[in-house]
Amino acid sequence: MKIRIGIFGYGNLGRGVESAIRQNPDMELVAVFTRRDPSTLKINTEGVIVAHADDVAEYKDKIDVMILCGGSATDLPVQTPQLAQLFNVVDSFDTHAKIPEHFENVDNAARMGEKIAVISVGWDPGMFSLTRLYSQAVLPEGENYTFWGKGVSQGHSDAIRRIDGVLDAKQYTIPVDSALEAVRSGSCPNLTTREKHQRECFVVASEDADKALIEKQIKEMPNYFADYDTTVHFISAEELKRDHSGIPHGGFVFRTGKTGFNKENNHVIEYSLKLDSNPEFTSSVIVAYARAVYRMNNSGDCGCKTVLDIAPSMLSIKTPEELRKELL
Amino acid sequence: MKIRIGIFGYGNLGRGVESAIRQNPDMELVAVFTRRDPSTLKINTEGVIVAHADDVAEYKDKIDVMILCGGSATDLPVQTPQLAQLFNVVDSFDTHAKIPEHFENVDNAARMGEKIAVISVGWDPGMFSLTRLYSQAVLPEGENYTFWGKGVSQGHSDAIRRIDGVLDAKQYTIPVDSALEAVRSGSCPNLTTREKHQRECFVVASEDADKALIEKQIKEMPNYFADYDTTVHFISAEELKRDHSGIPHGGFVFRTGKTGFNKENNHVIEYSLKLDSNPEFTSSVIVAYARAVYRMNNSGDCGCKTVLDIAPSMLSIKTPEELRKELL
Repeated sequence: MKIRIGIFGYGNLGRGVESAIRQNPDMELVAVFTRRDPSTLKINTEGVIVAHADDVAEYKDKIDVMILCGGSATDLPVQTPQLAQLFNVVDSFDTHAKIPEHFENVDNAARMGEKIAVISVGWDPGMFSLTRLYSQAVLPEGENYTFWGKGVSQGHSDAIRRIDGVLDAKQYTIPVDSALEAVRSGSCPNLTTREKHQRECFVVASEDADKALIEKQIKEMPNYFADYDTTVHFISAEELKRDHSGIPHGGFVFRTGKTGFNKENNHVIEYSLKLDSNPEFTSSVIVAYARAVYRMNNSGDCGCKTVLDIAPSMLSIKTPEELRKELL
Repeated sequence: MKIRIGIFGYGNLGRGVESAIRQNPDMELVAVFTRRDPSTLKINTEGVIVAHADDVAEYKDKIDVMILCGGSATDLPVQTPQLAQLFNVVDSFDTHAKIPEHFENVDNAARMGEKIAVISVGWDPGMFSLTRLYSQAVLPEGENYTFWGKGVSQGHSDAIRRIDGVLDAKQYTIPVDSALEAVRSGSCPNLTTREKHQRECFVVASEDADKALIEKQIKEMPNYFADYDTTVHFISAEELKRDHSGIPHGGFVFRTGKTGFNKENNHVIEYSLKLDSNPEFTSSVIVAYARAVYRMNNSGDCGCKTVLDIAPSMLSIKTPEELRKELL
């Protein structure tokens, strides 16, 4: 008997989940829910129901885990609490500052429904959070550093697209090599925003646009670019499509710390990700946590959890015996 | 009320645990147990009892978690099951092939005593095992690679010391850079033993020794050196003491995997450790798991566990609320 999965929302993340389910033989995709007209939605898996989001309650007993693939800004704050009353759910809520509030709302809903909800699953929050926690716990006296990139920032790309005369744009966040090296050396540097990351922008401008003005507007944009060293390249729509249509991302988490009676020994923990597809990797993490959610609810637990609360072995298709023998 | 810790065995690891406890304000060291005459043992913390190993049962109600600091070859297979009947325990059993057998023995003992035992805690097994599990779970189609070093291998150093004419020796295991790069590129190389690691030996020979013969004996030693590119340096006892008295170690765990409907996207997960002191870092991991052990037993659980079975949040001195707010 396979774990029956539902996908709620069919964008990049939803397609990533659909694809990831195929790599997990103990799972099957049962239905995809959309706010569009279901008859217009073409999905990649044959024999799977496409239903309207409004009809989701009808699937209460047909789906073991519902994976929410909406956005953190407006979708998930509403959808996750609603659906956690009916289903075990996993979401990728990534507005760090609002996690405590989201957790409370989802926890109340999941307890009412006697379901398990796991929020903020992915790589940051997600795998990076795990690394931060483990490394702080084992090296209590030290410093944490997180770097993002090289990767595409959707929010920054959107901000450029809103400038007059810009037809399309893609922005890459890039960690500064010298900052990575300084952290890696164990010297515990104090790094400014500008010293940690740089930003590279590829912009398609309209024919009559004032490129110098666009570049100035980008570089001086508060919050988004003003605090960074930013490079702007003007390219054609064809070049943008050919060279910049991927959604790569990644990053680094470091912990440097000291041990010993006289703090004489230094240690460096480094975790990094290089991802060809940000949404597909995020989806892959989510699908592994769907397995954990299913198991935890089957064992009688309920309420909201995060990756920090879930034992690693719950994620694996392997038995505890296999894990001890093969992986430990 | 602090978590009361006992240390069973006072070598490098025991001293590391003693030092690590000072970095964890919710813990206190209560007693150190030794098989030597306790009156001859000088420890680094004032006011702590030094007792004979034979008297350990008298401390049953005075210690919350006993940390076993003996060796995996002969100490832990006997001591961990014995002590798990009386105390919550943590050990660093690292003979990978014998973990399933050790687990069974310790599990039976801990259930009899209604205690929690966590075995095989450290960095490999330990932090590396966690990385292998998480990364396999999120990238089911891919390859795992583990590299060790640069670091001192005690077993290989000992093997050199047993050669006629050798007064002292230190052996470093070193990952081969080109192998690391090949793995990092995502090309999934098949690597032989020789391609993955090299070995560097610093040897103090007696005055009349045949150095050429010693070098030949090292390089041709089956299992230990014959399958590796090995470099041998003859140095003085003073140089060995001055330049090679540390116990550094470290290593790398990689997972490379593919996602997408056509497996078109590659992902690379890399975790690495650079440790000035192998025993102190191992001790620091153990002490974090002592906290988890204490909490799990307080919540009524018992039996043998590994790092794979324990939720990350159990390791941290911070509350779940703090963790969600600060780390997630």
